[in-house]
Amino acid sequence: MIADKMLNKIDEMQNPCVVGLDPVIESVPKHLLKGDSFEDVADAFRQFNYAIIDEIADIIPIVKPQMAFYEKYGAPGVQAFKDTVDYAHSKGMIVIEDGKRNDIASTAQAYADGHLGVVQTEKGKRPSMDVDLLTVNPYLGTDGLNPFVSVCKEFGKGIFILVKTSNPSSGELQDRYIEINADEEDQLVKFGIEVKDHKTMVYNLIALQVNKYAQADVGERGYSGIGAVVGATYPSQAEELRKIMPKSIFLVPGYGAQGGKSQDLVNCFNKDGYGAVVNSSRGIIFAYSKEEPLKFAEVAREAALTMIKDIRGALKDNGKYPVNWKD
Amino acid sequence: MIADKMLNKIDEMQNPCVVGLDPVIESVPKHLLKGDSFEDVADAFRQFNYAIIDEIADIIPIVKPQMAFYEKYGAPGVQAFKDTVDYAHSKGMIVIEDGKRNDIASTAQAYADGHLGVVQTEKGKRPSMDVDLLTVNPYLGTDGLNPFVSVCKEFGKGIFILVKTSNPSSGELQDRYIEINADEEDQLVKFGIEVKDHKTMVYNLIALQVNKYAQADVGERGYSGIGAVVGATYPSQAEELRKIMPKSIFLVPGYGAQGGKSQDLVNCFNKDGYGAVVNSSRGIIFAYSKEEPLKFAEVAREAALTMIKDIRGALKDNGKYPVNWKD
Repeated sequence: MIADKMLNKIDEMQNPCVVGLDPVIESVPKHLLKGDSFEDVADAFRQFNYAIIDEIADIIPIVKPQMAFYEKYGAPGVQAFKDTVDYAHSKGMIVIEDGKRNDIASTAQAYADGHLGVVQTEKGKRPSMDVDLLTVNPYLGTDGLNPFVSVCKEFGKGIFILVKTSNPSSGELQDRYIEINADEEDQLVKFGIEVKDHKTMVYNLIALQVNKYAQADVGERGYSGIGAVVGATYPSQAEELRKIMPKSIFLVPGYGAQGGKSQDLVNCFNKDGYGAVVNSSRGIIFAYSKEEPLKFAEVAREAALTMIKDIRGALKDNGKYPVNWKD
Repeated sequence: MIADKMLNKIDEMQNPCVVGLDPVIESVPKHLLKGDSFEDVADAFRQFNYAIIDEIADIIPIVKPQMAFYEKYGAPGVQAFKDTVDYAHSKGMIVIEDGKRNDIASTAQAYADGHLGVVQTEKGKRPSMDVDLLTVNPYLGTDGLNPFVSVCKEFGKGIFILVKTSNPSSGELQDRYIEINADEEDQLVKFGIEVKDHKTMVYNLIALQVNKYAQADVGERGYSGIGAVVGATYPSQAEELRKIMPKSIFLVPGYGAQGGKSQDLVNCFNKDGYGAVVNSSRGIIFAYSKEEPLKFAEVAREAALTMIKDIRGALKDNGKYPVNWKD
């Protein structure tokens, strides 16, 4: 069950940090590129990721490869993604695929099977991408989400449903008032959310749905595999969302390069010090100086250590330091 | 410019039908499967698609492979997708990738470059997936859409933004009343949409944004490469949406297997008989009888001819038959 596994791993590492593995050819060290084909780019990405994983696997619990940067290069890119997933698993890390997949019923099922579950071949079924968790977009409603949730239950996997994303324009739809029914209003009021004129923010409405899924699948440590994406850049929204989804783990993007500060994102955590994992991508993997390209992986480790210290410090400062952790 | 290209191709074929290439191992003829590996499945998909394309390329203007069914099988599946795109292009067909991609700015750019534009290698830039049009999800707002729109302009490509999807639960978010500002209200009223209490349906709000993009990039034939997904299963919503997005081409899923009837989807067309392309997947590609698996491609052609007749008939019956077309 992925929520238990994730919390145990977070305890082992004593931090909830996620390193985003988002390689781009303009930023990976030049010496890794051996030629001009898509296979060469994919090879460079693979070596880049492996070296970083080797440097951080003993300090960071989770990696998050962003699928867009791999599938850009077609089948060779997707193979580099898959190899990265397997390599991270071999080092004991948990893998979140940032793919923001979404579709209607039978097609959502295909995404769920391919990324989280098993796929049919001539003679049987076996895993394909086999990531631990996947980000999912909720615009199509529950019949587009249900297949993901079912596969998560069956295979002990997880999803993070987009609720309040970290980007500047996320509010164009997500921060608008939307009509809700009496049952939804009751639920929000019970969670301590103020409701006026039978309306709430779109992100609160989506959060209610996430919570419904999450409450139906809670692990031994009190958290669910059905989580939410909540941007580090929106601390006041995070405070409301934490109330509506008490059992969900938040995937928190936007820290570092996107401007989110550690003091802002403590609202994403519950009082027990759990309930969120914080991602940084460019701020870690491209922290190295162009003058010393050979040191890219070591420098990523240093940047990860700085992030860990920062996040742990913010949890301490705000009385959200897990009791299991050493000082 | 893809809208002009698409309308010219539709005129050449005298129908606006799209065949969805959504292979699933349980439904492709058994004789195509030569072994148990993902490569074998990918090979079967490739042969299946090529045979169908050979049978329909002289009567159908557009194919729409759904990425979920290919990436399910990892890199070999993605290669089968890419080969299908290239094969359809070699037969003069237009290719819509149904991928429902979405992300924040720099990542949306990666999706746009990889699927519609060009990607960087060591020495230069070249196309990767190179489809003509891609479906895109709007939950993240304009900074997640802008990179797709820019790439469309630069490379003469197109997108279909999800507005009102064909699935039963699409209304859970899309059919709710949402607050709008004075400018949005003015625009809707000008389009002849009734607005009460400064609210409208979510799908209308998204449609306004689609229209804004579309109006900024209209081709010689009066249509834009920035289109919308509008399900065949929701005729009254389609009528409103047609008013709000006069320059956009609608990708209309839900015909056939999902229950949408030709008489329902005429609302997706403008009075000139253009402005929509209608997809059928399972109803065409899996029309063959299990007793005669060798005839799968011929039967797909017959099913396509039946669909063409049905859609053309509905356009005629409703006074929306293009003047360029023969009787």
